[in-house]
Amino acid sequence: MLQVWIDGDLVPAGEARVSVYDRGFRLGEGVFETFRAYGGHVFRRDAHLARAVRGASFLGFELDVDELARAVSRTAEANLPAHDGADSVVRLTATPGRLDPEAPFPGRPVGGPTVVVTSHPLALDPRVHRDGVTATSVPWARELPDVKAVSYLAATVAREHARARGADEALLTDADGAVLEGSGSNVFAVLAGVLVTPPASAGLLAGVTREVVLEVARAQGRQVEERSFAVAELTGADEAFLTATTREVMPLVRVDDVPVGDGRPGPVTAALHEGYRAEVRREAAAAG
Amino acid sequence: MLQVWIDGDLVPAGEARVSVYDRGFRLGEGVFETFRAYGGHVFRRDAHLARAVRGASFLGFELDVDELARAVSRTAEANLPAHDGADSVVRLTATPGRLDPEAPFPGRPVGGPTVVVTSHPLALDPRVHRDGVTATSVPWARELPDVKAVSYLAATVAREHARARGADEALLTDADGAVLEGSGSNVFAVLAGVLVTPPASAGLLAGVTREVVLEVARAQGRQVEERSFAVAELTGADEAFLTATTREVMPLVRVDDVPVGDGRPGPVTAALHEGYRAEVRREAAAAG
Repeated sequence: MLQVWIDGDLVPAGEARVSVYDRGFRLGEGVFETFRAYGGHVFRRDAHLARAVRGASFLGFELDVDELARAVSRTAEANLPAHDGADSVVRLTATPGRLDPEAPFPGRPVGGPTVVVTSHPLALDPRVHRDGVTATSVPWARELPDVKAVSYLAATVAREHARARGADEALLTDADGAVLEGSGSNVFAVLAGVLVTPPASAGLLAGVTREVVLEVARAQGRQVEERSFAVAELTGADEAFLTATTREVMPLVRVDDVPVGDGRPGPVTAALHEGYRAEVRREAAAAG
Repeated sequence: MLQVWIDGDLVPAGEARVSVYDRGFRLGEGVFETFRAYGGHVFRRDAHLARAVRGASFLGFELDVDELARAVSRTAEANLPAHDGADSVVRLTATPGRLDPEAPFPGRPVGGPTVVVTSHPLALDPRVHRDGVTATSVPWARELPDVKAVSYLAATVAREHARARGADEALLTDADGAVLEGSGSNVFAVLAGVLVTPPASAGLLAGVTREVVLEVARAQGRQVEERSFAVAELTGADEAFLTATTREVMPLVRVDDVPVGDGRPGPVTAALHEGYRAEVRREAAAAG
């Protein structure tokens, strides 16, 4: 039986409820984070939590990072038996609280933040890393780039758009056609031997996995550049990949039905994924 | 005691809850509508509901318009005593259902749509219509223009931005600086005697109140044009106003601290508001 963290306690999944006045439910106000638990170890937990706290602050409410850390780690550990000890996905949702039912709509939040943490099975299709994934570009960007908001609709709609076209992921682009990011991932290309990814300043959500991959690349002595590139430059790259917390480093082999490079997973992608996995093992070992 | 419609029944506000797996709460997936109930009569209920059904369909789920109509009207009537018979705000939220806790995140919705209707006091500051309201322009647009989505964060953030600058409303603008709409309203200007409002095709949420005002203007024999205009054109207008379901027709007297016209509510605004109120009375009388 899955357990859910809500309001400071773990309860069975079927009993975890929030008020219909919760501002996350009613206004899409709030932040979320997705973590991958490697066994019971939540990788880069605190980097994710720092972003959640920052996003909440931008939206005008305060979160206690120590309470979030306890909530996330305890939820991962409590659900380990339900996942037979396998890796899992942990998801935090935090909203500013409730609407006051008696006040004129929408008024100010009451009742303090709502903090919910759930644990989900991680289903990994082996083809993702072996054969790579495909993407479709869409001419729109994330609503509020800096905030990983509960309001994830632009990303959700973009992904459905891509899926309907037979692609795995949607690439959001800006008004000039520059690639920003995937709907749930960051994008890297190897261009003339240089590892390139769009800069956070372009208006994208710079993921924790993106940061770790940049660290790993520098540790491997690779030349790294943060700059924008167009879709055509991406398909002309030596190779490309997507990064995401749950699926780590995924070879990107086709965009808008055009092969990237020779259309097969590349060696830099493989080496960076290997380096990423090593960093996961290092952090988990250091955490005891 | 306020009553909330949820899953086909009216329950006390304090007991109305949804699962933490609800996709509205977790992903901002869903649609909402705000109605004004004049006493027990919900004005233009079916026009609002048609948009909700359309938006849900765009997001990939189906809503039963007859069920929504019953939910909205019964909620308005049941809460009339709680509001001492005064006008109130009725708010519908509909989401595609829940995440499957046992499935890899996010998976497909399970459990059918969630339909929630709440009733809120309508607090009208008499200054809104007497003295008019002020606005600040912001250089961004609504996330998904056609859908009145639960993900309302861009609008919420825009309004907070305006409030922090001492203005009542934020005017969303497109990449070329054309005025699109307010964060929770539509915008009209009287330019050289012609009533002008940006077209729905510009990428905005064309409100039900906007439609009624256009009907009223044509019935009053006014020249009407749907076209884009810049902020500077707006402040140079004879007069301007905002339309919203709850606050009807509001004189717009300052934008970015520049007076609109002579900075006072104008005669066309007043005549259109009077015509709007007459249409409300007509519809309520026809409904019996």
